[in-house]
Amino acid sequence: MIDKIRIEKKTKLIADWQTLMRTFVNHKDDASRSTLVKYMEQIFFGLHDFLKKHVGITEEVSLKDLSRNFTNTLISKNPEKKLADVIADLVENIAPHAVNVTSPYFVGHMTSAIPFFMVHLKTIVAALNQNVVKIETSKVVSILEKQVIAKIHRLIYEKDEAFYEKHVQNIQTTLGCFIEDGTLANLTAFWVARNSMLAPKNGFAGIEQEGLQAAYKAYQIEKCVILVSKLGHYCVKKAGGLLGIGNQNIMTINVDANNRMDIDCLKKAIKDIKNSSVNTKIIAIIGIAGTTETGTVDPLPEIGEICAENRIHFHVDAAWGGPTLMSEKYRHLLKGIKLADSVTIDGHKQFYMPMGCGIVVFKDPSIMDVVAYHANYVNRPGSVDLGIKSLAGSREASSIILDGALKIMGSRGYALLIEHGIDTCLRFAEEIEKRPDFQLITRPELNILTYRICPFHIQRRLAEGNPEQICDINKKLNKINRAVQRLQREAGKSFVSRTKLKINQHGKDIVVFRCVIMNPMTNIKILGEILDEQEEIFRGIEGLRIEEFRN
Amino acid sequence: MIDKIRIEKKTKLIADWQTLMRTFVNHKDDASRSTLVKYMEQIFFGLHDFLKKHVGITEEVSLKDLSRNFTNTLISKNPEKKLADVIADLVENIAPHAVNVTSPYFVGHMTSAIPFFMVHLKTIVAALNQNVVKIETSKVVSILEKQVIAKIHRLIYEKDEAFYEKHVQNIQTTLGCFIEDGTLANLTAFWVARNSMLAPKNGFAGIEQEGLQAAYKAYQIEKCVILVSKLGHYCVKKAGGLLGIGNQNIMTINVDANNRMDIDCLKKAIKDIKNSSVNTKIIAIIGIAGTTETGTVDPLPEIGEICAENRIHFHVDAAWGGPTLMSEKYRHLLKGIKLADSVTIDGHKQFYMPMGCGIVVFKDPSIMDVVAYHANYVNRPGSVDLGIKSLAGSREASSIILDGALKIMGSRGYALLIEHGIDTCLRFAEEIEKRPDFQLITRPELNILTYRICPFHIQRRLAEGNPEQICDINKKLNKINRAVQRLQREAGKSFVSRTKLKINQHGKDIVVFRCVIMNPMTNIKILGEILDEQEEIFRGIEGLRIEEFRN
Repeated sequence: MIDKIRIEKKTKLIADWQTLMRTFVNHKDDASRSTLVKYMEQIFFGLHDFLKKHVGITEEVSLKDLSRNFTNTLISKNPEKKLADVIADLVENIAPHAVNVTSPYFVGHMTSAIPFFMVHLKTIVAALNQNVVKIETSKVVSILEKQVIAKIHRLIYEKDEAFYEKHVQNIQTTLGCFIEDGTLANLTAFWVARNSMLAPKNGFAGIEQEGLQAAYKAYQIEKCVILVSKLGHYCVKKAGGLLGIGNQNIMTINVDANNRMDIDCLKKAIKDIKNSSVNTKIIAIIGIAGTTETGTVDPLPEIGEICAENRIHFHVDAAWGGPTLMSEKYRHLLKGIKLADSVTIDGHKQFYMPMGCGIVVFKDPSIMDVVAYHANYVNRPGSVDLGIKSLAGSREASSIILDGALKIMGSRGYALLIEHGIDTCLRFAEEIEKRPDFQLITRPELNILTYRICPFHIQRRLAEGNPEQICDINKKLNKINRAVQRLQREAGKSFVSRTKLKINQHGKDIVVFRCVIMNPMTNIKILGEILDEQEEIFRGIEGLRIEEFRN
Repeated sequence: MIDKIRIEKKTKLIADWQTLMRTFVNHKDDASRSTLVKYMEQIFFGLHDFLKKHVGITEEVSLKDLSRNFTNTLISKNPEKKLADVIADLVENIAPHAVNVTSPYFVGHMTSAIPFFMVHLKTIVAALNQNVVKIETSKVVSILEKQVIAKIHRLIYEKDEAFYEKHVQNIQTTLGCFIEDGTLANLTAFWVARNSMLAPKNGFAGIEQEGLQAAYKAYQIEKCVILVSKLGHYCVKKAGGLLGIGNQNIMTINVDANNRMDIDCLKKAIKDIKNSSVNTKIIAIIGIAGTTETGTVDPLPEIGEICAENRIHFHVDAAWGGPTLMSEKYRHLLKGIKLADSVTIDGHKQFYMPMGCGIVVFKDPSIMDVVAYHANYVNRPGSVDLGIKSLAGSREASSIILDGALKIMGSRGYALLIEHGIDTCLRFAEEIEKRPDFQLITRPELNILTYRICPFHIQRRLAEGNPEQICDINKKLNKINRAVQRLQREAGKSFVSRTKLKINQHGKDIVVFRCVIMNPMTNIKILGEILDEQEEIFRGIEGLRIEEFRN
């Protein structure tokens, strides 16, 4: 079935110059135009038709079976397939085994259906094939990027008109940039923060030039740290490793009962650092606006104030929650974000863009000067070249997609999506609490919640038990929840993810289901069905010796 | 003209749920299907038609004038435009001011026309919208990525069938990964190299965990360096800054008369480092397979041997030249590449993929273990999740494009393109040498060359002059060449880039034209026209007091 050989059509293909040339030229005649359109129809409706066929994640073919069909590692000398056959293959053999992230029953990750026009806009980006690293391969598109970044900056910082007039097309200043994803957007922010905090002084040329060792000497420190709540994304540790400060120096701060950074713990950590015998510099403190696991928002105003007092770079990781700013109803949840020195937002998350678009913006239009690089052939000082201040080099023109989307949707359009997600998530929490087999673990603040199977009588036993009993019960519950999540995923009708949370009241790690409601077609009825299915699986589980958990 | 208001169509748009929903659903009825196809036709043929209208880079509208139309920084509350109008805008107002990188007269940068099917494949990637960071949002596409990376690994390393059978779908090992671009692919390689060279030992947990300061202590070193030829890409310095070793510790090695790393200089540098009073570790030595400026290939076998002798990570930056391996005629130019511990190749360069595809592969399938990261909700140990060992997090499924392209083109198809580029470049060099006004500066090895305007009688004066006279003449020539390049670019018919090279025989920096021949429609006739135009501009230049340079 997979990689099936289309014997009926098989004629030997030979690579030749004329055929090759035809793939490069503009299509002037009607025949070749209609062929192109036919391919595109095949892509649009072929993929959709196939994705429709299974409402869940994917057809049940195990990874091992699948991977057996993807083991040929030789690049064939002559063409193996024509475009039409490659498309047919993708439609028939790849799409059905990909994950149908467009299904409203797919509520496990931060990936969802996207508006169809996003695909059109991405196609335009590919067809224009501009490289925004430099003006000579992008021209107006570099100018457009500056405008779109300024729009995002304004959404967050709400500076006055004069500020934006001055900076929107200023070739000396930079309000932020696009990059592949949130991990790299955060890395860009910490890179800038590190270099700003260990800037040139008294004959020291700065950490970027002289390195960390010299910087520690110049600043008479022995250690740098970045502070983030225990719910920080794993990319923060990765950035710590990359930047040379060591991932063990990413200090995690406890969260309060609402999964927000505990400000007293933060204050104590800062005090401890100051009093430590090891001279330590705090490079940055991170406030999360929508943690990956619980969707909660750290107390940004308080963190911002503490950073200002202590002159520490304040970064807000709003990869998930940033677009909430477009909702008048919920933007208050991100109060304090404008205190941030830098903010990450992912375009492919709640801007509903296709995969591959991180964004980072900086309050200070000159702060990115600490990461400027030049070369003789590009990025000359004083040019508009966006590559001067950017972690990446060559980049596609993501700004075209975001610009088009903002114009087609308006902030109100996005707000409708955001509000649907949060409102539906709140209703889902109510539904979970109504059902005796389930226990809501983290209440939604944005559109993410966690819960688990934990029948009511067990909840009572947990409330009354001693630590040892609680630990024992949780162990068994973890096993059950892990099994139910796996069985539901494998059944292929719906998908809820799972994670482990250290919830204060429960002591150790507990396994929970994690729901992310961003697909506008996901509604409370569908979520109810997902719970029904989980109950059913739970009741049907054999061999786990969980009789005691059932009513 | 730009951003013109379409008064005739203007009706107030309101964001509402029903309209929004229609952008998310599958299109079942014929009417909405044909609308979608209409949009796609508009994109395909609209863009092509407009790009055709100017053969050069772009219409002559100055950047300042252009940027005046991109200053509004408010996201409008309600929709500003419908998709059709956004597309029309892109076709009418953006495309004509973007750079026509598809023109065969655009020979200045590493961006070119791409086969039309690349756009189709990119559209499929966007429509499927998989996120290959984890199997739960990509399934078969993660498996496909492993296969495609193995194909590239095999193209470079040519290990035996057993090796690939073992590793192609092995979830414990990783042959490489995709990332946004070559800068980040190189960064990935140096990150891995740094961590391998400063690995855990005797109670030291490794640089990734403990940081650079602790690593230097554990290894009793005071400095780390990376060695690269003077023609190394600027991203190497950027990586040095990012990784904490300091960009001043990227040591550049002189090149020989053919612009290849001078092996004697390299040996001397290593010796000097060993004998230095500052304990220094060499993290990596880079061999370039196609320098950005001259397209030359470093002596890879010699560098590889030196690295092996000294147990230094050998990285080959083949961002540009990598695909030359598909040409039987020219693959010998990359001899020695299989000695590399890591290799970077850009998909959006000579694999002719749309912008946004870097690739890095590693000889040792386990070396990426030094950059592995896990989290509770994804990237669990033992999973197929590709995000475990990857600089980026969320990523689009670039493997679909490269896989399709390799099947449609075959290595022979790519070879035809590569060979056309090198052969045409060689003929172009001959043509330059025939014309008395020009001087060939760097002879093509791959498909890049540099030259300048330097009339024959001036060449004679340069050959006979004393250092001061030479310097004086070169200064004037630099001014002329800078002016001609700018005027040609502004005329908008063709585009040749410029850079500054320190050519041994000329002493100081000289300004040169740089040509990259990758567009298969660029031929010697077109290149002749480009020279004609430059001659004409040169003869017409006023106000530069260059009478003495004219015959």
